[in-house]
Amino acid sequence: MIIVHTIQEIRKYVREQRAKGHTIGFVPTMGYLHDGHLSLLRAAKAQCETVVMSIFVNPLQFGPNEDFERYPRDLERDAKMAEQAGCHIIFAPDVNEMYPRSKGSVLTRVEVDEVTVQLCGASRPGHFRGVATVVSKLFNIVQPDQAFFGMKDAQQVAVLQTMVDDLNIPVEIVPCPILREVDGLAMSSRNVFLSADERQQALVLHASLQMAERMVADGVRDVVQLKQAIREQIQTAPLADIDYVEILNFRDLSPIMTIDQPALLALAVRFGQTRLIDNIVLKIR
Amino acid sequence: MIIVHTIQEIRKYVREQRAKGHTIGFVPTMGYLHDGHLSLLRAAKAQCETVVMSIFVNPLQFGPNEDFERYPRDLERDAKMAEQAGCHIIFAPDVNEMYPRSKGSVLTRVEVDEVTVQLCGASRPGHFRGVATVVSKLFNIVQPDQAFFGMKDAQQVAVLQTMVDDLNIPVEIVPCPILREVDGLAMSSRNVFLSADERQQALVLHASLQMAERMVADGVRDVVQLKQAIREQIQTAPLADIDYVEILNFRDLSPIMTIDQPALLALAVRFGQTRLIDNIVLKIR
Repeated sequence: MIIVHTIQEIRKYVREQRAKGHTIGFVPTMGYLHDGHLSLLRAAKAQCETVVMSIFVNPLQFGPNEDFERYPRDLERDAKMAEQAGCHIIFAPDVNEMYPRSKGSVLTRVEVDEVTVQLCGASRPGHFRGVATVVSKLFNIVQPDQAFFGMKDAQQVAVLQTMVDDLNIPVEIVPCPILREVDGLAMSSRNVFLSADERQQALVLHASLQMAERMVADGVRDVVQLKQAIREQIQTAPLADIDYVEILNFRDLSPIMTIDQPALLALAVRFGQTRLIDNIVLKIR
Repeated sequence: MIIVHTIQEIRKYVREQRAKGHTIGFVPTMGYLHDGHLSLLRAAKAQCETVVMSIFVNPLQFGPNEDFERYPRDLERDAKMAEQAGCHIIFAPDVNEMYPRSKGSVLTRVEVDEVTVQLCGASRPGHFRGVATVVSKLFNIVQPDQAFFGMKDAQQVAVLQTMVDDLNIPVEIVPCPILREVDGLAMSSRNVFLSADERQQALVLHASLQMAERMVADGVRDVVQLKQAIREQIQTAPLADIDYVEILNFRDLSPIMTIDQPALLALAVRFGQTRLIDNIVLKIR
């Protein structure tokens, strides 16, 4: 496996792979890999001949009071894990390579409406503008056939699918399932920040998603009732500070009152300094 | 020469040309061609093996009170002219093909800052958002090596160059000189709207640009003085209604007080219902 840091190098590499007739699978990440990321690499490896991963902690998608500075970084560790999962090349640019105008700034932005209004789009103003802009750039740099994203960031997948559709970007977005620890906590690079107590209490997230799934299986259809039950369940954990609990149309993330088609139940909850997200798609049998 | 109307058809055509090892030159237009457009086709033909022209009157770049509905359209006439100038294929989609969500709307927009603040960006709010968004789409659909734009829309060239740089779009923007009628009027699809009187008085635009050029050659460097002289010259035409007369840094369209490096002198003037633009780059010998 190779690691490159410049746009010129990754473009040259991809051009060479293309010349061999290889298809390109792309896994954009912010690094500090966990099994969730590795599952994306394996999915890419299964479908494409060349697997490219980017590692870039994108300042544009962090708010001024968010955790850009303390976001965990360890390229050496990431490289070992990525290689074992079948990655062929890591593109790890620095901020200056991605935003040469001035550190972290850019004159051109990609804005996506409607699917960004709810959930993390509401809690983190500008977040999805930063995501859409950097992913546009990465797609233009790598020019992959397929790009693999985890469903833990379900809204991110919806935003990027909307962007790709609207701008006719010739890349297929491939959503991949959430990976969980054995006790049910969704894998996240931020889990490393949790104290032992927070880590234990964070299990309430997956438990509340499972409870909602059971309620729907038992015939509950009312969104207000479901959200109330989930909130109460989460609040049994004293360290949990709810950012949002939302149930939206899975297709376009529009508000719904009743579960009558696939719905996204998404939640964001703080434990101490650490904000965790999780979700499940509620379906009627 | 072929005419296609769908994204699928133009993509298939370009793919076939690529498979033959052809480079792709692209000329995006709103149609109703004049010699200016044809000069872009000839420039594309001189540099690329396959020449693609798009004809699409893009509703997204027209304001609510602008001339989207009455903008001149004549595909049959355009096709004959384009073929003679060496065009290989015209991509002429309808609004629904480009904006399938709902007529003329789109959830994803490309926004460019700073270079859009002055000139037409100030007079036509949202105009360059519409231009950047549709050109992003067209670039993603056609995936050309080079794209050719006339310098009459000098700010458009600056906006698209900024967009291409910032988003790492793998397309080279090739600016081409303004073409003029024998009497000096810059060629424009909108010239057809001018009455005989308006057409005659519109010559004041080129005359005022030439006057400014002479003043700079004679040693005038003060931007306020130059702008005042140009305004007075334009106002000798009773039908002229000035939208703007601006002199800006040619590189980044920032305001300047003195001509000490290449400067863009740009103007927009209404004659009756018709808004004309013209410009010249002022250089010190």
